[in-house]
Amino acid sequence: MAAPAFTGVIPPVLTPFTADYTVDEATLAKQAERMIEAGVDGLFVLGSSAEVVFLTRAQRRVVIDTVVKAARGRVPVIAGVIDTTTPRVAEHVADAVELGASGLVATAPFYVRTHPNEILTHFRMIHDMAPQLPLYAYQIPVSVHVTLSEGLLLQLAEEGVISGVKDSSGIDGAARSLIEARNARGLTDFKVLTGSETTVDLNYFFGADGVVPGLGNVDPAGYVRLARAAAAGDFLAARAEQERLNKLFRIVFVGDGARMGGSSAGLGAFKAALVHLGVFADGRMAPPHTPLNNDELAQIHAIVDEAKIDR
Amino acid sequence: MAAPAFTGVIPPVLTPFTADYTVDEATLAKQAERMIEAGVDGLFVLGSSAEVVFLTRAQRRVVIDTVVKAARGRVPVIAGVIDTTTPRVAEHVADAVELGASGLVATAPFYVRTHPNEILTHFRMIHDMAPQLPLYAYQIPVSVHVTLSEGLLLQLAEEGVISGVKDSSGIDGAARSLIEARNARGLTDFKVLTGSETTVDLNYFFGADGVVPGLGNVDPAGYVRLARAAAAGDFLAARAEQERLNKLFRIVFVGDGARMGGSSAGLGAFKAALVHLGVFADGRMAPPHTPLNNDELAQIHAIVDEAKIDR
Amino acid sequence: MAAPAFTGVIPPVLTPFTADYTVDEATLAKQAERMIEAGVDGLFVLGSSAEVVFLTRAQRRVVIDTVVKAARGRVPVIAGVIDTTTPRVAEHVADAVELGASGLVATAPFYVRTHPNEILTHFRMIHDMAPQLPLYAYQIPVSVHVTLSEGLLLQLAEEGVISGVKDSSGIDGAARSLIEARNARGLTDFKVLTGSETTVDLNYFFGADGVVPGLGNVDPAGYVRLARAAAAGDFLAARAEQERLNKLFRIVFVGDGARMGGSSAGLGAFKAALVHLGVFADGRMAPPHTPLNNDELAQIHAIVDEAKIDR
Amino acid sequence: MAAPAFTGVIPPVLTPFTADYTVDEATLAKQAERMIEAGVDGLFVLGSSAEVVFLTRAQRRVVIDTVVKAARGRVPVIAGVIDTTTPRVAEHVADAVELGASGLVATAPFYVRTHPNEILTHFRMIHDMAPQLPLYAYQIPVSVHVTLSEGLLLQLAEEGVISGVKDSSGIDGAARSLIEARNARGLTDFKVLTGSETTVDLNYFFGADGVVPGLGNVDPAGYVRLARAAAAGDFLAARAEQERLNKLFRIVFVGDGARMGGSSAGLGAFKAALVHLGVFADGRMAPPHTPLNNDELAQIHAIVDEAKIDR
Repeated sequence: MAAPAFTGVIPPVLTPFTADYTVDEATLAKQAERMIEAGVDGLFVLGSSAEVVFLTRAQRRVVIDTVVKAARGRVPVIAGVIDTTTPRVAEHVADAVELGASGLVATAPFYVRTHPNEILTHFRMIHDMAPQLPLYAYQIPVSVHVTLSEGLLLQLAEEGVISGVKDSSGIDGAARSLIEARNARGLTDFKVLTGSETTVDLNYFFGADGVVPGLGNVDPAGYVRLARAAAAGDFLAARAEQERLNKLFRIVFVGDGARMGGSSAGLGAFKAALVHLGVFADGRMAPPHTPLNNDELAQIHAIVDEAKIDR
Repeated sequence: MAAPAFTGVIPPVLTPFTADYTVDEATLAKQAERMIEAGVDGLFVLGSSAEVVFLTRAQRRVVIDTVVKAARGRVPVIAGVIDTTTPRVAEHVADAVELGASGLVATAPFYVRTHPNEILTHFRMIHDMAPQLPLYAYQIPVSVHVTLSEGLLLQLAEEGVISGVKDSSGIDGAARSLIEARNARGLTDFKVLTGSETTVDLNYFFGADGVVPGLGNVDPAGYVRLARAAAAGDFLAARAEQERLNKLFRIVFVGDGARMGGSSAGLGAFKAALVHLGVFADGRMAPPHTPLNNDELAQIHAIVDEAKIDR
Repeated sequence: MAAPAFTGVIPPVLTPFTADYTVDEATLAKQAERMIEAGVDGLFVLGSSAEVVFLTRAQRRVVIDTVVKAARGRVPVIAGVIDTTTPRVAEHVADAVELGASGLVATAPFYVRTHPNEILTHFRMIHDMAPQLPLYAYQIPVSVHVTLSEGLLLQLAEEGVISGVKDSSGIDGAARSLIEARNARGLTDFKVLTGSETTVDLNYFFGADGVVPGLGNVDPAGYVRLARAAAAGDFLAARAEQERLNKLFRIVFVGDGARMGGSSAGLGAFKAALVHLGVFADGRMAPPHTPLNNDELAQIHAIVDEAKIDR
Repeated sequence: MAAPAFTGVIPPVLTPFTADYTVDEATLAKQAERMIEAGVDGLFVLGSSAEVVFLTRAQRRVVIDTVVKAARGRVPVIAGVIDTTTPRVAEHVADAVELGASGLVATAPFYVRTHPNEILTHFRMIHDMAPQLPLYAYQIPVSVHVTLSEGLLLQLAEEGVISGVKDSSGIDGAARSLIEARNARGLTDFKVLTGSETTVDLNYFFGADGVVPGLGNVDPAGYVRLARAAAAGDFLAARAEQERLNKLFRIVFVGDGARMGGSSAGLGAFKAALVHLGVFADGRMAPPHTPLNNDELAQIHAIVDEAKIDR
């Protein structure tokens, strides 16, 4: 049996840095507190939005430790254990267990070319490392260049290896198909969370169990309102909230693609918004990210101001 | 100024494991010794063939330490510092410097989407971490899903950031074009090594400075003979040696693609050959690799026997 | 100014063949009639589902002519003018105009590597060939290996070159973003149709103007009911209809991927369903498609029977 | 049995246009004559370099007819029959046979997702359309987004379906591996031609049977000298010629990638060189290609002048 999965609004917590690129623990705790007060159902640390692949093992430990302590058991803290292959993931699993994480999120192996059989082995071994914790498969083809098929996910669900999936593929139809297939097989303990922050209302509408929105760092209360409206069956209210959030989401398109990559534009915008809101002291991203320039920051500030976000 | 680069036959040393997946130091030292005795010009540890992305930081340190000690200064030991982003690479650079590596090999960032500007920053920062060591850029699009353009490589060469490139793109025409452009700009201190083990004769023929052949683990003497023939201008002898090696290379195609990925088939074959030759005690690969079955092993042994390899 | 676009349920009409692979005109007319009677708002001929890239120019002309005549002006007939580059598309545009099509659908160039500037030129030239007909851009990266960016689409909309887009990317968030951006710029004459047949309810929910569902060949009345429910604001009814259709959509996953490609499995299933429903006389696809076997056909028939489709 | 294949230097003939984008027959004939006089072994019309996917069926017929007549039987004329799928290829095969082509070149299907079984069917059906003509498989993954595996090619060779392959993958190691496997199976009637114009010396060195160099339009005599040197076993002379040609090849990198795609830069450069040499009257490419600007043309002219090409 797989451990029960967490559901609801579980934002992927950004990792703030000080001027010398150490993890800014005080700000991280403050941001965790802010999101808990906004009503989120859990916190996902060390995801892609956390710049996890830019963090050393020691830094990753600091992040888990800080957020687990900040959460004080009020909400579960789910830890990304994202690394190239099983042996390296194993270290992160051990850290997450030691430091009190309540769940794990792992991707398929990357950098290496793997067969689906090897991906199955990978998840089975991770589950065996910490069978007491729910394990989520992280569907993120843009980063790992592999798509976990519906059949593979359901096989792992049936085996009790994974308790859920965090779907960042952007293909809502695939998430819906997975939910329909899960329901048809009676695997309703297997939970589907979407990472598509601009279609959360839709995902709730077709039966998703929760959301992991990067933009939830900037406006956690918005996503909580959206989720509550959806839970109450008021999808028109959910949609209105989503449309407001989608205007805010435009901040990720401000950074100039001729000068920077998508990670710099997206995470840079989230961090800049949090500085503008007075939550973060510093918006810097780990190297080799490209910083936003003043003109871009001004555009982001204007969009944030318009969104009238609860602080 | 970039540090002077090493050239010649520099095999990427495989990492042998014991039954519990610790690094088999004795076997690793033995294999290093065997390759040095065969006449190689350097040893490249912690490359893709070394299962580097399957190794923990502690294991990587063991590998560098073991091979540096085994080499006893007879040949340079060049260390892969392969990881997702600059801060994590920094740890490996520190380890490599501390443990006495003579050069570094780094890829573009992976998992994240990066702009060429960010790749430039990445290499510049790595160079600044250890300016005394030659830094090679590792061209391996199949793993990092990015191709380093000729312009980007030459810019880094002109800046003194990189001393060379290890080209595992498989596109010999691109390596040749790079060499021609390098020569035209007078950047002949910038060295081009090929990782294409079946076209080494060709690479020498058009001016490459060396080779990093995975198959050199199995038959180092063959690659040394090939390189010496090429250096002497006897390309027909080089070609004959290459053709013999290419028959041996067929071992990587034995593993069944319906059951395993390319890494399992390729590295599994190299390790199986070394077990068959009595060099390795155990052919296992790190999880989640799929092991070769007995039928596949028998086919590999037959090909190895036919190649009449010096032990 | 762009010509006004058609909206609503506009199924991509399959192309039935006789035993010698000529277009079965009688069956095609019958299927058009069946869809019009079911209440569709238009018919899209010569799309991907029509096996357009398997049809000769003469066959394409037969298809347009047959459906235009069958439609008798009751609904508009929109013709795909899908080919590799502008000069070849020009022939199809001339044919479509001559034969009475009411709108055009074109992809980006394919086979060749094109710059966005060249894609802009391509659409501008197509528009100039028949400015009186609304031109839809066909977003189908799986076939043309290029994604038309939001910026490019809106630029063409602002220029009056395209009247709408048919989005078969599968990324509903991108379609929604496009609609939001369109609305923000006041470009509401630019229409967004989705080709994602399993998320039509969602697309209507976030403001899409219509749907081009391949499955609409099998169950046109279902999509009409869905669209009408959505138009009436009854999204729960729309969802219920969608969920029923999604069970039916499972027919496309029956064909064995170890033996056939996705086109054979998908179009083969649609055609097999239509044979089973008594609409098509023959389910064959153009070569080199792989036919479904008897076991697969039986599974498809069972799914179709369960869906209780209006004939 | 497959029909015997043609080998040697077989340039892919560019298609010149007049100002209104009709095929400039006189110039095409002149260019064919120039290449025959230079000593080429065959002419390949309607390849990618010929802008084949920009040409209507009528234009393609004009091209074959013009070159067959210009060749007057002195060298074979091999025709590309490049189109999306089998039925459309069939029309081009019929045209090629009618107009006197001596061989055919076909790619895998494109635009559609095909299974290897379907690719096998595709080539078998093409062969059956004209079994008297040698059929070459065209390996061009950059355009068709599929790679024909060594196993698939050898199976088609063993069946007598294909007589050879034209390899434009850029991966010389794969071409060499194919030749080695062919030789091991005794399939030496199956011929391997390379389309990699900057590594022709290497391809001859490892046993390729010929070359289809786009740059051969600009400097056919250079490729003929190269091939003759290789045939005589004088690989140093072949290399010297190749290196001279590679300097000339730099013309394809002049066009600015920020403004145009690779096809515009490459074919534009070839055509501009031919205008500069007085062979072509007009360098225009079919729409939606982007023309080179005056500054780019000047750079190309300078490179051409330096190459001292026989006219």
